[in-house]
Amino acid sequence: MRIYVINPNTTASMTATIAAAARHVAAPGTEIIDMTSGAGAVSIECHYDEAMSIVGLAQAVKNANLIEEQRGNREGIATGRDHAFVIACFGDPGLLAVRELTAAPVLGIAEAAMHAASFLATGFSVVTTLGRTRVIAEHLVRNYGMEHHCRRVRAIDLPVLELDNPASGARARILAECETALREDNSAAIVLGCAGMADLVAFLSENLGVPVIDGVTAAVKFAEALVGLNLGTSKKGDLAFPLFKPYKGSLTDFAPRHV
Amino acid sequence: MRIYVINPNTTASMTATIAAAARHVAAPGTEIIDMTSGAGAVSIECHYDEAMSIVGLAQAVKNANLIEEQRGNREGIATGRDHAFVIACFGDPGLLAVRELTAAPVLGIAEAAMHAASFLATGFSVVTTLGRTRVIAEHLVRNYGMEHHCRRVRAIDLPVLELDNPASGARARILAECETALREDNSAAIVLGCAGMADLVAFLSENLGVPVIDGVTAAVKFAEALVGLNLGTSKKGDLAFPLFKPYKGSLTDFAPRHV
Amino acid sequence: MRIYVINPNTTASMTATIAAAARHVAAPGTEIIDMTSGAGAVSIECHYDEAMSIVGLAQAVKNANLIEEQRGNREGIATGRDHAFVIACFGDPGLLAVRELTAAPVLGIAEAAMHAASFLATGFSVVTTLGRTRVIAEHLVRNYGMEHHCRRVRAIDLPVLELDNPASGARARILAECETALREDNSAAIVLGCAGMADLVAFLSENLGVPVIDGVTAAVKFAEALVGLNLGTSKKGDLAFPLFKPYKGSLTDFAPRHV
Amino acid sequence: MRIYVINPNTTASMTATIAAAARHVAAPGTEIIDMTSGAGAVSIECHYDEAMSIVGLAQAVKNANLIEEQRGNREGIATGRDHAFVIACFGDPGLLAVRELTAAPVLGIAEAAMHAASFLATGFSVVTTLGRTRVIAEHLVRNYGMEHHCRRVRAIDLPVLELDNPASGARARILAECETALREDNSAAIVLGCAGMADLVAFLSENLGVPVIDGVTAAVKFAEALVGLNLGTSKKGDLAFPLFKPYKGSLTDFAPRHV
Amino acid sequence: MRIYVINPNTTASMTATIAAAARHVAAPGTEIIDMTSGAGAVSIECHYDEAMSIVGLAQAVKNANLIEEQRGNREGIATGRDHAFVIACFGDPGLLAVRELTAAPVLGIAEAAMHAASFLATGFSVVTTLGRTRVIAEHLVRNYGMEHHCRRVRAIDLPVLELDNPASGARARILAECETALREDNSAAIVLGCAGMADLVAFLSENLGVPVIDGVTAAVKFAEALVGLNLGTSKKGDLAFPLFKPYKGSLTDFAPRHV
Amino acid sequence: MRIYVINPNTTASMTATIAAAARHVAAPGTEIIDMTSGAGAVSIECHYDEAMSIVGLAQAVKNANLIEEQRGNREGIATGRDHAFVIACFGDPGLLAVRELTAAPVLGIAEAAMHAASFLATGFSVVTTLGRTRVIAEHLVRNYGMEHHCRRVRAIDLPVLELDNPASGARARILAECETALREDNSAAIVLGCAGMADLVAFLSENLGVPVIDGVTAAVKFAEALVGLNLGTSKKGDLAFPLFKPYKGSLTDFAPRHV
Repeated sequence: MRIYVINPNTTASMTATIAAAARHVAAPGTEIIDMTSGAGAVSIECHYDEAMSIVGLAQAVKNANLIEEQRGNREGIATGRDHAFVIACFGDPGLLAVRELTAAPVLGIAEAAMHAASFLATGFSVVTTLGRTRVIAEHLVRNYGMEHHCRRVRAIDLPVLELDNPASGARARILAECETALREDNSAAIVLGCAGMADLVAFLSENLGVPVIDGVTAAVKFAEALVGLNLGTSKKGDLAFPLFKPYKGSLTDFAPRHV
Repeated sequence: MRIYVINPNTTASMTATIAAAARHVAAPGTEIIDMTSGAGAVSIECHYDEAMSIVGLAQAVKNANLIEEQRGNREGIATGRDHAFVIACFGDPGLLAVRELTAAPVLGIAEAAMHAASFLATGFSVVTTLGRTRVIAEHLVRNYGMEHHCRRVRAIDLPVLELDNPASGARARILAECETALREDNSAAIVLGCAGMADLVAFLSENLGVPVIDGVTAAVKFAEALVGLNLGTSKKGDLAFPLFKPYKGSLTDFAPRHV
Repeated sequence: MRIYVINPNTTASMTATIAAAARHVAAPGTEIIDMTSGAGAVSIECHYDEAMSIVGLAQAVKNANLIEEQRGNREGIATGRDHAFVIACFGDPGLLAVRELTAAPVLGIAEAAMHAASFLATGFSVVTTLGRTRVIAEHLVRNYGMEHHCRRVRAIDLPVLELDNPASGARARILAECETALREDNSAAIVLGCAGMADLVAFLSENLGVPVIDGVTAAVKFAEALVGLNLGTSKKGDLAFPLFKPYKGSLTDFAPRHV
Repeated sequence: MRIYVINPNTTASMTATIAAAARHVAAPGTEIIDMTSGAGAVSIECHYDEAMSIVGLAQAVKNANLIEEQRGNREGIATGRDHAFVIACFGDPGLLAVRELTAAPVLGIAEAAMHAASFLATGFSVVTTLGRTRVIAEHLVRNYGMEHHCRRVRAIDLPVLELDNPASGARARILAECETALREDNSAAIVLGCAGMADLVAFLSENLGVPVIDGVTAAVKFAEALVGLNLGTSKKGDLAFPLFKPYKGSLTDFAPRHV
Repeated sequence: MRIYVINPNTTASMTATIAAAARHVAAPGTEIIDMTSGAGAVSIECHYDEAMSIVGLAQAVKNANLIEEQRGNREGIATGRDHAFVIACFGDPGLLAVRELTAAPVLGIAEAAMHAASFLATGFSVVTTLGRTRVIAEHLVRNYGMEHHCRRVRAIDLPVLELDNPASGARARILAECETALREDNSAAIVLGCAGMADLVAFLSENLGVPVIDGVTAAVKFAEALVGLNLGTSKKGDLAFPLFKPYKGSLTDFAPRHV
Repeated sequence: MRIYVINPNTTASMTATIAAAARHVAAPGTEIIDMTSGAGAVSIECHYDEAMSIVGLAQAVKNANLIEEQRGNREGIATGRDHAFVIACFGDPGLLAVRELTAAPVLGIAEAAMHAASFLATGFSVVTTLGRTRVIAEHLVRNYGMEHHCRRVRAIDLPVLELDNPASGARARILAECETALREDNSAAIVLGCAGMADLVAFLSENLGVPVIDGVTAAVKFAEALVGLNLGTSKKGDLAFPLFKPYKGSLTDFAPRHV
């Protein structure tokens, strides 16, 4: 099976971190096809960055369908078999829109991480980057029915791209915030609130002694699970393929088509 | 004051209906500046159509800021004074993203209609077009805390653009669905679930004898109210202007800038 | 149009503060008719003070109807056109009861302030007077579906009538509590929790740099909006005019009558 | 102990029905002191009737305190010992206000009935009189945290005072509605939604074969329970005695006083 | 009437404390029959201890039925008359299972305490023993619809059996935690979070000046109330007697039988 | 890795159905070790059957640990590596208790199925066997935060063991109920509400054209996912191993021990 791991921001180095984490956990028969958004923000840190990422996401799905066709899985595009999508940004941008575009399973990394955490602990905390993104995560918590499991969303107040800057002290600050979370929130697990933290799981879980869940890897494994169950996005109701209709202006090419 | 009423779809005839309704209720000192999205779907009927509308919405805000500058309200762009935005699609697409882009008040029409309805009745029903959009409305109901007021979201199962087609029987079907709602849902008011229904308020309220709330007009009046109170979108926290950062690809021009 | 701004307590000086704020924001065509309750507590600071204020509120609605008749709007009494009511106490006492008594729109100031705040920020804090009234505000938060928007209700622990006493230091304490709210609650807007704070908006918003929402002015503008939309309280269901029936004892004159 | 069972409407014959039911279940040491409101509606069937009933309720508490003094329980007025109050109207009007006025336990009959039902079944239905009062009951369901237990509020659409009119067919209609509730709502118990139904418990439970809970009798027994536990209304926080302050106009005598 | 107060742990000395508290509040005609679980943990302090207590609980119900038969109340076993059950562990283990096994009322002590507290205060705090049991109490808070009333669950972090050890300082620690709760949680009543605290009510309520609610005594009085109302567990739906069927292995004797 | 799939009822033929389904989806490196409860009900159809199943579940975990030791994974017992547990009954009996007993991941099949469904559709319906078990499923829906995703729990009103009886018409009735669900509930996926339906997935999904999710297979794949992520049950807080303490009577051997 192929799992398309789409980084909705346009920073290729971050895609590399994400892809490495994804490949590290992928099962033998799983091919990770990583994609970097071709349009939009170099990092996604607000509602606007998120909303604009839909353009790159839609293009990525189109590209993925081309690849599926090349791999001889034209039928799978309609049935959703043998492939899946992961949206590798903790805001899960465009999740329901992307689900409409494909019959394959689609997982957001916040969604995957929170659900995984709820299997392992009755309470968890999210630790994310910029403070202003906490509200985005809190909205997801409610959308996913995680109000009772997620005890608090915390931020280290560093921009996303500082995660890769050793001088930022990001690792130490994340660890400290996780420790505070375990002490003060009555939480028993940590959800990492940014795709760029995917390489910190081992470091943090060793130091914290509780499950530390990264959404990228969780989403890859849940995607494998769904493909293994022959389950894809329901094409009945609001997640059915978009109705065919004209799109105008710079988005003409993005009009829904027969898949 | 100026109220920018943005139709997030690209069908100008629908903008005309919307703008007429807006102007009909606008106060003497209010200028309605209607805008039709320059990019995207001719009608918005699913998660994907909605998500893609952000491009046109962002462009519209940029255009509005240019107009404000021409009107000598350069300072108002930073402070949010003397103008406001209405997103005239019942899915309230891009609402929080657009709020980030401006210091002026921004209202979604579903938001405005539901809040207005909650001032007039303890229970209301939404009547919308396509059945698949009910889920979108139900998500908004939860986001806005309207679970207790909104007793049901109903659909007449006609595409948005059929509203303007006399042969579709849309008016009669909407009326019939409203009557069913009042009879079966224990509702005492009707919220119209599509910007394209803005011209049906008089017809329906006369026939139904209960408040019939159209979001376009409700949003215009609430926008006037907020401007009149000198209140604009909070620029603290998650709705602050987006951080400046590069955008790549086809969206390069959409990178956040100093306003 | 006429907006009847009813102070449900019996302190005329507080009505003066409220009326001044109301007139300050009223649109050219709006006449603010302020009314002070003729019966009950000099300040409303507990469930009992609130409950008892219904007598003065009911009398005020009767008086308002007389004025409407004098103004030649007898028909408007039945249809709700051209006038509206504002209940100017942050507990929104008697809100649904007053709605039953009239076909015009009725707004509580807590209701108006919270809804306005939800249009401007994803999270707000309420700052009120006495600590014991926090529970009243928290109940309103739930009734209005504002649990996700209202992050905390805070109190400065001063009686309502001390707001007018310069020696009380009320202004400084309110400012300090607002600052704490913005720092600790992850809030981006402030809702003032008492009608008597209506004159503090300018002072506070200048110092805080975020939207500061007073319910009196918000309710006046939303009332104008609803009247402008020709919308009034639904007379179907639980908000229909009360059934005619005898009232006994000291309340004989308060029996529901044909309006 | 003495339990003051206050009928908040002014119809003495309904008080007689209520008092008979109360005495039927009272324990040997319990004296039921029934009181009919001296002011207000002959039946309580809407928000306004409810709100106005506070006057009679407040007077009844004052009268009860006089009786307690006559019985030599002056200390009990301050400590809440040896007596309790039941508000015998299914809307539980003035519940929190009355709680402020006394240190004794105060129970609403809707509150008592719903809590009792939740001890006996995982799901119950409420069957009440007029359709418009359903909304009042639904608000109580939320206030009491009964959303998961109360599966539906139903009405037979007869006025309260028709319960005593044999020609109304009330008994048969209530029985039929209960049967429908058990069949359609997945409920396993019935809560009677009106104090005037207190005499129907035996008839209905025999015919239905499930617990049928009348709030008057449930409240009396729970009041006995709380008095037996030496527990009264907390006098800390929002339910403390009202602050002393002047009341004006026709309510001068209702100003809070030292008890 | 007989109330079977079952201690689901196997420590007889704790049963003695519980039984003494129960008898202290029982009405003249009430016989308290205390039972100590014959199988399982000496103290219940985690999900597993709780789950395993069902064996002892089921045996206790069987034993209780034998006693009822001896007392000549064979018919009462089927109808639920004249007796009731109290599960005296704050986790309310096996509550719904035990309800299936009998037609009599069954009360959990957490359930009884929380409901009683909600009658006396708009907000209460729970103070329990081990920190890890807080999650159990929080789940009950949600199951019972007490999210709005219960403001916080607190723990003194002492094992249950240390409550009887004077050297543990348990009394002082509980008092201190209660004081913190009243100061920080905006609570006006205390719910004791362990059956073993039943003897502390007088000490704590004297020192705190607010209602202190012990679940054992509250459950006994509510059980008396329900028996006095001739109400028992509904035998319709999910709480009907278990279907007859074979049980295998060590639990053969626990197969549901005709009662 | 090894996945212990425990059938909490004592009917071996049902275990065979379950195990076949589990093996059908297991990845190459996964060994399915099926276990039938050694004690308790032949089918689990009520709260009591569920509660009693904890004995067999606890024994199964002990047996599993012995097997892990035999496989040389003694360390894995403490760390939770390389194995996982599935509780194969739709009521997810003993879920949190079993999680305490092991450091490995533990999945309930209702939990797994509902979470999987929420990845594939915005709304799903559950179709289960006996009507009385609907309440059990509804409680799980709330515990798992699935209130917004699960639109209805439906039952075919057949006992669990009739699923294997061709004469019962179970297949046809399940199909019919699923069709009704899709038509009436606004659902776009079906969750099968019984472990004994695991063999119906292909039949139903072919006929229905929407995702049909069986919990057994979903739980197996999610368990593989978690093991593949090196994630196990958090041993901090309420899911830590039970405190060591004596157990008495017939459960002496079930006292928590060093693992």
